[in-house]
Amino acid sequence: MTQPAKQNVVVREVGLRDGLQSIQTILPTAQKFAWIDAAYTAGQREIEVGSFVPAKLLPQLADTAELVAHAKRLPGLIASVLVPNLKGAERAIEVGAHSMLIPMSASRAHSAANVRKTPEEMLTMIAAIRAARDAAGSKTRIEVGMSTAFGCTLQGDVPEDDVIALLQGGLDAGAECVGLADTVGYADPGQVRRLFERALRAVGDKLTCAHFHDTRGLALANTLAALDLGIRSFDASTAGIGGCPHAPGASGNASTEDVVFMLTRMGYDTGIDLDRLLALRQQIAGWLQGEQLGGAIWRAGVPKCNARSTHAV
Amino acid sequence: MTQPAKQNVVVREVGLRDGLQSIQTILPTAQKFAWIDAAYTAGQREIEVGSFVPAKLLPQLADTAELVAHAKRLPGLIASVLVPNLKGAERAIEVGAHSMLIPMSASRAHSAANVRKTPEEMLTMIAAIRAARDAAGSKTRIEVGMSTAFGCTLQGDVPEDDVIALLQGGLDAGAECVGLADTVGYADPGQVRRLFERALRAVGDKLTCAHFHDTRGLALANTLAALDLGIRSFDASTAGIGGCPHAPGASGNASTEDVVFMLTRMGYDTGIDLDRLLALRQQIAGWLQGEQLGGAIWRAGVPKCNARSTHAV
Repeated sequence: MTQPAKQNVVVREVGLRDGLQSIQTILPTAQKFAWIDAAYTAGQREIEVGSFVPAKLLPQLADTAELVAHAKRLPGLIASVLVPNLKGAERAIEVGAHSMLIPMSASRAHSAANVRKTPEEMLTMIAAIRAARDAAGSKTRIEVGMSTAFGCTLQGDVPEDDVIALLQGGLDAGAECVGLADTVGYADPGQVRRLFERALRAVGDKLTCAHFHDTRGLALANTLAALDLGIRSFDASTAGIGGCPHAPGASGNASTEDVVFMLTRMGYDTGIDLDRLLALRQQIAGWLQGEQLGGAIWRAGVPKCNARSTHAV
Repeated sequence: MTQPAKQNVVVREVGLRDGLQSIQTILPTAQKFAWIDAAYTAGQREIEVGSFVPAKLLPQLADTAELVAHAKRLPGLIASVLVPNLKGAERAIEVGAHSMLIPMSASRAHSAANVRKTPEEMLTMIAAIRAARDAAGSKTRIEVGMSTAFGCTLQGDVPEDDVIALLQGGLDAGAECVGLADTVGYADPGQVRRLFERALRAVGDKLTCAHFHDTRGLALANTLAALDLGIRSFDASTAGIGGCPHAPGASGNASTEDVVFMLTRMGYDTGIDLDRLLALRQQIAGWLQGEQLGGAIWRAGVPKCNARSTHAV
């Protein structure tokens, strides 16, 4: 029986940024190099290696420039960084990151706490970043990550209209793609369907990425809901580390290994070797002793039978 | 704005059977009474209270007859039991259980290990149970739970054709409804969709129940997949306890509180009060100290905002 070609799904590693920024342990740069190398060997081709924020705020991520330089040596790897402001963006451009993610909060309360700006001020800043990028002749992609798109621990409900308006505003200001993030783990699959459907109607294929946290156990169900709508890029963090320092109670990104397991079993091609990824997870767990880790597949192991070989999507 | 009526979903509690059979702790009958009472007060209306198996095999469940009698005093509560053979069925009929679940393994290896019969011998036995039930003038419903429908730790792959043939065989032999069970936590949402679609085509609304384990983190994603196909009854276990003594590595039913949280957030009506259920979970966790528990929502708590009030399904 001829099998239809598998569909590709990108699982972007954000453990080095979203993960490490939210825990106490400061990983030495050499271990981060080893993490990036092993993730690359396992097949990961998009890694958010850090943030360009002041080292006094997030000393865990002070070596971001070195990590970008390291990651750029690996052929085909997209090295992305988070930049909260123009100064950070200038550094991303300077070191030649392939992509820079600007976190924009749909919640006004979270925006004030996280980036000390209103959403409107963020839009002005995005325009300034776009101008700086173009003036520098840089190819660094500009992506907006819409934080707290599904609710906020500080503000509570976040109106869907606000989210859609800000997505459009971010693109109008010069971003090239946008993603929706459930920063605090509030989203349910019904909400994911509603908001992604609206967002896809509003901005089409400029909406490229979903970012879920497993705070309330729904990261994989939410991933499934977005996948069903055609989303083909998901942020995830090996060992499920992650959170947000300004969103109390938020912890645990979707774990890369569980997302890869689900997608692979469903017949999607992530390009990632799960056995190698699980070996990396074990290594990271050794580095992060005492930290709260997440994920399920590492504990039970992969099933004895392999249903994926018998079907494609 | 007028809201459409919410759709009802039944979450059947199986912690007292599937949960307690797989752990070391033997709960005293008085604590099981308290569990049933609190689950009822929280709004649960279907509880699998135990199994009619020899006490020497599962001493944890030796008080099943008392639990049925206790549960029958609670108005509107459906008290179900698991029965592996005719003798167990005769006891279920004798004590007037509302429903009896016959576990049938789609995997021949699991069938031999779990009930020491081939699937064909199980079909003969179902016919004998139906005859005994009818001869007694009993109203005890006969349900077949199709174990290892998505794969088996002993046998590996389980052919979908076998599952469908056995579902039909069980109904032909006299069962009144059937469910599909991922006994060992192998199922992925794609497989759930394929098998449930085939089963619904084959047996229609006689397929009433889905039973997922969270062994590999996919219980909620699988629940979503079955929900999308119209399944409206799910087994789950408070605190995520569960497993199967004859399926190595299988542990952790879908946790009742996480399933209820997801369904409620999505706008379904389970009739269950999550706060009361979480209080019961805490009580159970106290009784089961040292046992491995599951679930996520108990840790993070319910979100500050309540999206469910703003939308229905």
